Amino acid sequence: MTRPINHAWQLAQRPTKNIDRDTFALVEESVPELADGEYLVRNVFLSVDPTQRTWIREEPSYLPPVGIGEVMRAGAIGEVVESRHLEFPVGSFVTGLLGWQEYSLLREAVNIVPPGIPLRPMMGVFGATGITAYFGMLEVGEPKAGETVLVSGAAGATGSVAAQVAQIQGARAIGIAGSAEKCEWLVKTAGLAAAINYRTEDVEQRIGELCPEGIDVFFDNVGGATLDAGLKHLAIGARVVLCGAISTYNELDAPTPIHWYLNLVVKRARMQGFLVLDYLDRFPDAVMQLVVWDMEGKLKWRDHVLDGIERAPEALGMLFSGDNTGKLLVQVAPDPTAL
Amino acid sequence: MTRPINHAWQLAQRPTKNIDRDTFALVEESVPELADGEYLVRNVFLSVDPTQRTWIREEPSYLPPVGIGEVMRAGAIGEVVESRHLEFPVGSFVTGLLGWQEYSLLREAVNIVPPGIPLRPMMGVFGATGITAYFGMLEVGEPKAGETVLVSGAAGATGSVAAQVAQIQGARAIGIAGSAEKCEWLVKTAGLAAAINYRTEDVEQRIGELCPEGIDVFFDNVGGATLDAGLKHLAIGARVVLCGAISTYNELDAPTPIHWYLNLVVKRARMQGFLVLDYLDRFPDAVMQLVVWDMEGKLKWRDHVLDGIERAPEALGMLFSGDNTGKLLVQVAPDPTAL
Repeated sequence: MTRPINHAWQLAQRPTKNIDRDTFALVEESVPELADGEYLVRNVFLSVDPTQRTWIREEPSYLPPVGIGEVMRAGAIGEVVESRHLEFPVGSFVTGLLGWQEYSLLREAVNIVPPGIPLRPMMGVFGATGITAYFGMLEVGEPKAGETVLVSGAAGATGSVAAQVAQIQGARAIGIAGSAEKCEWLVKTAGLAAAINYRTEDVEQRIGELCPEGIDVFFDNVGGATLDAGLKHLAIGARVVLCGAISTYNELDAPTPIHWYLNLVVKRARMQGFLVLDYLDRFPDAVMQLVVWDMEGKLKWRDHVLDGIERAPEALGMLFSGDNTGKLLVQVAPDPTAL
Repeated sequence: MTRPINHAWQLAQRPTKNIDRDTFALVEESVPELADGEYLVRNVFLSVDPTQRTWIREEPSYLPPVGIGEVMRAGAIGEVVESRHLEFPVGSFVTGLLGWQEYSLLREAVNIVPPGIPLRPMMGVFGATGITAYFGMLEVGEPKAGETVLVSGAAGATGSVAAQVAQIQGARAIGIAGSAEKCEWLVKTAGLAAAINYRTEDVEQRIGELCPEGIDVFFDNVGGATLDAGLKHLAIGARVVLCGAISTYNELDAPTPIHWYLNLVVKRARMQGFLVLDYLDRFPDAVMQLVVWDMEGKLKWRDHVLDGIERAPEALGMLFSGDNTGKLLVQVAPDPTAL
């Protein structure tokens, strides 16, 4: 029987700084016959996320590093096309760390996509990035009605949801993003109180102007100078939510420093990191709430889809130049749930 | 009637870096006759604390800056020697922000020293530094039995109490201090599990060796490179208590940066500042608990007394060179409670 051909991106070498053409290698191989207990997923969308940059470092982070020659670890979503596993019948849709490849041959359990939810939002607003925003903002940031919330990377997949989750709580959200178009989307479409264009404006000065009584919650995706600018303008009792620090992920040995951490003392504030994986058992609740908010029209989101498996490394680079608008996906097969 | 002569240190100019002989000016003046509602305190001990360095900057911190020509703000303890205020009779002992001076003429209420407590420990282990350690460790650090607690500035007035409070909770405390003698005191007298001499040892490497499973609570007085070294070795769920950052207080425009804050994400940890003033209404509870622990022999402490009002600025400098051993006081009158 003719077997499907899988194309997969393997980690070829660890980058010392930026991702380049030598970081990954695209390999081609026939998918083997399934053994008992295995099932085969044809991936539709591959996820491209800043945290993937940290997974290809030499040093372990919250997950072990991807090994040289291993398929690049990544979230993906697809359809079960062959199965010798009772829990994953042909025709079901699944999502998990399926990797940057067209076909994933699996034995272990991954998540089944709830019926009726299209695949694209399941990879963004209802997926890991949206859930990250949900728990990070609600459980770590704890915004209250009337408070001022600052979000960096605010036009991104996580930041845009985080800012809107804060507004749903009655807080006033201000976003930092990298283009006039993104800032306009944040204010006019997502309904934020204001947006700061970090490419054309003095971020620290604008934060001071827009938050005259200080920031109560700072949801930071960026780190470095952006984090520092927010730290200078904390309100008393502020919560700084560290979601990640894209500005530092290409710095191998010398992460961009911050200087204003002592404001945490003066303002009796806390800075706290979190990982969405720690909330795994509560993912269904988060997805349900996000779906409800979406149906009520309270959540605006965008995704940005590149076509073809060959574009995955390029897509990862786009995150660091800020060229994507919203959740970045690579589509590697037709979407059976597309309207 | 002949009036007492007061000697007082006024702020003469704001230092750009280290305290020097031009920072303060010693002035002499007669104490005026009291008006109704006023009372006069003859100070016995003046307090010398790292935070005083932050009070003489131009920028407001958690308290407004001391003005040029104003008496230097400082905690002190003394005896009421004249009074036209019913709540503060002659012969009572009081403590509060009485300033670097021999006599304080007051109208407002300050704290009355509970009868039976000698003045020296009331200025240290039962005073602001001990209470800072108490609330910072218990309320912000939340050490649990079996956890590993790292304390920097561990031989100092606050750090030494913080480390022992953690041990009383059943945690294993490790201290960082600046001499072999201080390290020996921490281990042999205060009973810490280990001590690191930051002048002769590689602090980060030693933390790694002494805390192979990471630090659960890091109570940091120092900031900068010391804070960074601890951040590299956090355990999952760690709490970093920012009590202050003596290593940065002489840096006016460029506080020493930290690089490893992203470990707060990887370790799902929090870094939180606090001010003991926020716990003002609970000071009596803290003092009572500290007194009980002291009576039970569970708290070891040292103070370091310099004689004469003229030594106050020199004493403040000693804190930054680390030449003091324990709570640093300047004695400006005989101690009526001395044994």
